Amino acid sequence: MKLNDSAFLLLHADDNLVIAKRQVSPGETIVESNGAPPIATTASIDMGHKIARSSIAVGDPVRKFGQIIGFASHPIAPGEWIHSHNLTAGHLSLDYAFSSDIPAPPEPVEGRVFQGFRRADGRAATRNYVGIISTVNCSASVSKYAVDQIRRDILEQYPNVDGVVALTHKGGCAMQYDGEDHHQLARVLGGFAKHPNIGAYVIVGLGCETGQTGFLVDDQSLVQLKGASQPQTGSPLVLTIQETGGTAKTVNRTVELIKELLPEANKVQREAIPVSEIMLGCECGGSDGYSGITANPALGIASDLLVAHGATSILGETPEIYGGEHLLTRRAITPEVGQKLVDLMHWWEDYTGKFGTQIDNNPSPGNKKGGLTTIYEKSLGAIAKGGSTALQGVFKYAEPVTSRGFVVMDTPGYDPASVTGMVAGGANVVAFTTGRGSCFGCKPVPSIKIATNTPLYERMSDDMDFNAGKIVDGASVEEVGRELFEKVIAVASGEKTKSELQGLGDEEFCPWSIGPTL
Amino acid sequence: MKLNDSAFLLLHADDNLVIAKRQVSPGETIVESNGAPPIATTASIDMGHKIARSSIAVGDPVRKFGQIIGFASHPIAPGEWIHSHNLTAGHLSLDYAFSSDIPAPPEPVEGRVFQGFRRADGRAATRNYVGIISTVNCSASVSKYAVDQIRRDILEQYPNVDGVVALTHKGGCAMQYDGEDHHQLARVLGGFAKHPNIGAYVIVGLGCETGQTGFLVDDQSLVQLKGASQPQTGSPLVLTIQETGGTAKTVNRTVELIKELLPEANKVQREAIPVSEIMLGCECGGSDGYSGITANPALGIASDLLVAHGATSILGETPEIYGGEHLLTRRAITPEVGQKLVDLMHWWEDYTGKFGTQIDNNPSPGNKKGGLTTIYEKSLGAIAKGGSTALQGVFKYAEPVTSRGFVVMDTPGYDPASVTGMVAGGANVVAFTTGRGSCFGCKPVPSIKIATNTPLYERMSDDMDFNAGKIVDGASVEEVGRELFEKVIAVASGEKTKSELQGLGDEEFCPWSIGPTL
Ligand SMILES: [Ca+2]
Ligand SMILES: [Ca+2]
Ligand SMILES: [Ca+2]
Ligand SMILES: [Ca+2]
Ligand SMILES: [Ca+2]
Repeated sequence: MKLNDSAFLLLHADDNLVIAKRQVSPGETIVESNGAPPIATTASIDMGHKIARSSIAVGDPVRKFGQIIGFASHPIAPGEWIHSHNLTAGHLSLDYAFSSDIPAPPEPVEGRVFQGFRRADGRAATRNYVGIISTVNCSASVSKYAVDQIRRDILEQYPNVDGVVALTHKGGCAMQYDGEDHHQLARVLGGFAKHPNIGAYVIVGLGCETGQTGFLVDDQSLVQLKGASQPQTGSPLVLTIQETGGTAKTVNRTVELIKELLPEANKVQREAIPVSEIMLGCECGGSDGYSGITANPALGIASDLLVAHGATSILGETPEIYGGEHLLTRRAITPEVGQKLVDLMHWWEDYTGKFGTQIDNNPSPGNKKGGLTTIYEKSLGAIAKGGSTALQGVFKYAEPVTSRGFVVMDTPGYDPASVTGMVAGGANVVAFTTGRGSCFGCKPVPSIKIATNTPLYERMSDDMDFNAGKIVDGASVEEVGRELFEKVIAVASGEKTKSELQGLGDEEFCPWSIGPTL
Repeated sequence: MKLNDSAFLLLHADDNLVIAKRQVSPGETIVESNGAPPIATTASIDMGHKIARSSIAVGDPVRKFGQIIGFASHPIAPGEWIHSHNLTAGHLSLDYAFSSDIPAPPEPVEGRVFQGFRRADGRAATRNYVGIISTVNCSASVSKYAVDQIRRDILEQYPNVDGVVALTHKGGCAMQYDGEDHHQLARVLGGFAKHPNIGAYVIVGLGCETGQTGFLVDDQSLVQLKGASQPQTGSPLVLTIQETGGTAKTVNRTVELIKELLPEANKVQREAIPVSEIMLGCECGGSDGYSGITANPALGIASDLLVAHGATSILGETPEIYGGEHLLTRRAITPEVGQKLVDLMHWWEDYTGKFGTQIDNNPSPGNKKGGLTTIYEKSLGAIAKGGSTALQGVFKYAEPVTSRGFVVMDTPGYDPASVTGMVAGGANVVAFTTGRGSCFGCKPVPSIKIATNTPLYERMSDDMDFNAGKIVDGASVEEVGRELFEKVIAVASGEKTKSELQGLGDEEFCPWSIGPTL
């Protein structure tokens, strides 16, 4: 029997550890394929956790994926559990080696299409939503009330409209006018207003907020989209509660405006669009020890296939790239692109340092329970989502993504904030891997939830769209990755995700604020 | 005719300016009561804005409320409009004079009651809500779905329950575990769980979030309240989506749990409770030139009356106290209390400095349009809400308020975040003054909205509860303040506010995050 057919998984020949594929009891034996003497486990070890396959002295590197994930802080014997008690992140000295190892472009694949919506200005949509964009928390209730009324009384008359969403949040005021945080929020709100999946929208503000509607419209050059058949000119529709005369009047006026927009917004139908116009946002949330060995590498295969088809795959979550950036700088298409990535890391070190916080305080308690010990281990697992092609660009949070291929966007690791940025940047499908479980949804964009392990897939069957855990059960990463690529195309073409079937996605719009709130 | 019966309002004999009570045309004359030569206005000047009543040289102080609000940056002629173009904040050197001017306690008033709910442990409530407390954004949708179902199908059977509220937010993860931001969020969530207006609650988390349910329950010593007739012992009800098996199952289980809690939660009735058990949270939002001369001083009178009755009035919004703290340190009951206030100011200077932001970038564009030029002017107007009694204590954000009388809580100026902190600290009525307009609501606590001017009161009649603008029309501050005190008692006794009548308050729960989001 091969080692990987047993309860243990060796990820790379250079590794001095194996992974428990299930809960392992003390005294179970790791039998190497090369005929070396069997090693007995010395403790009960949870699924996804690490076990030493050789002696590791204090200060010696601990390797997973063939990469250093940290250093032994106590002597580790063969068969011993490796985790926070005997493994520390230490300080990895990184060699960026900019653009030294740019992968050859994948063999281009042409002619493959999905069924999407073509907007009058040429953009490709995967869903057709109408939005109410709330500039500030003070207009959130009004926006929600209007959406409730439209859903209850009006929407069924427009079968080609997938839904109406109130993009409400907790910010929009008490920030520095024209400051970095204000611009970031404007990019998010503007990015959603301009998102291909939004067929028409109304902006609703209070009136006196720092995040003025006029600033938003100007800064983001917003225009109204009037359905596929109309030119996109003219100012967007803007209401403020203070000018309109309060809650009730503004709800009524918002509903009236949306009513006027709906007939045009409904005049769409799906048509064949090249797969190259898919922009996939890749996210992992509630990671576990399997994230980096099943779902994320499978998503990496799907990303590579999308890139081969001329499409775009976005890797976000800068704090989770942290420690693994030297793997991406080598793949950067130019040294400038690589330097942008390194600059992000410095921004984050500086930013978290202001708060006395360590960027490598990550992984979370849930991650640790799932078997991830160090930020490096988590990062190496996290960047697997981006696949293996050249890094074509690095974008600011919520910045419009203008490169095709594999790109990085600066987002926090926090799922709703991260995905909000990628969608604002243009992602029209989201792929969300999770080991601990998630019920994330993200209107107006479908979010495919990918379980890293079969027990999760079964336990949260109402929420999980895809089981990458079958890799542990024997399927190859390549095979599962191809299947996931097909799932992305199906969902882009209108197949509803589990979160869409449950109506999720009204609460997860979460613009990342870098502060301060005054 | 007296000056204050004309279009102009002189606030204090030492002032070198008057306020326009309405839009004033160029050439209208300011006729002083003392027979001095009339002064003609030199421009069209908006309501609430300032006009010089004497020549002011560059660098000379500009006085309003008898206090320095800044210094002339250009020469100002009599009759000239005073605003950002000729007035700067400069740097006021403050003399704290700790506890040098502690006001005599107001004449105590006894025997006055309101009709409230008495909880089994003795706490006094003004409303009777059931809550779903969401630890993290990842459980927000589940919490909202459960509330929707309870409102639709169940709640009408329990007429003594005022409502069910999902306390959802955008945070709860990607913060430093056990760090300052984590503790602050725990104080907010714990403060709401322990709020007298919450008769029963369920905590709903995802499972893997940094803000673990177990941390919350332990840190905040949470117990379940089982109606008025039951002892408050036993652990609170906690669900996680990951353990419960996903969205649908967790919604169902949450609804089941709330169903079990409702019969006991319904067993309450209003009874006479001393007014001393009212805790008023004072907030101003969307301030204008009238905030500091009508609504805020009237609220100050109401605060003083509450204090005379042994009750508590909370002044928040530290950045809006900034610049006026030397008026409060004199009134501090001990130098230690005064020093706590000064320490807050230093924390804020340090905090905003980290971001390269000035704490005095306040007032907002809306404030400026309304006639407020400098932070000092705004602060002097803002602290008027706290009245004139001794400062009894200074509390952290969302910290339980344990002093009676007039106290300060450290909150940001941002309305939803500020009120969330005061309610978490125990405020059972909120008084919210506004000049530009607001539709703020704050479940489970009623929020009285007080217009600073009559045009606003009339324009947003569906949202405004009280018109302090009648002070401009001739009523005295004292008279209007007494009327507001009576309104507070009526609302505490069950009279519905405008925002309650409209169902507002589901979106405004907004825990203040000091960052960083990782
Ligand atoms: Ca993650
Ligand atoms: Ca994370
Ligand atoms: Ca994440
Ligand atoms: Ca304010
Ligand atoms: Ca405020």
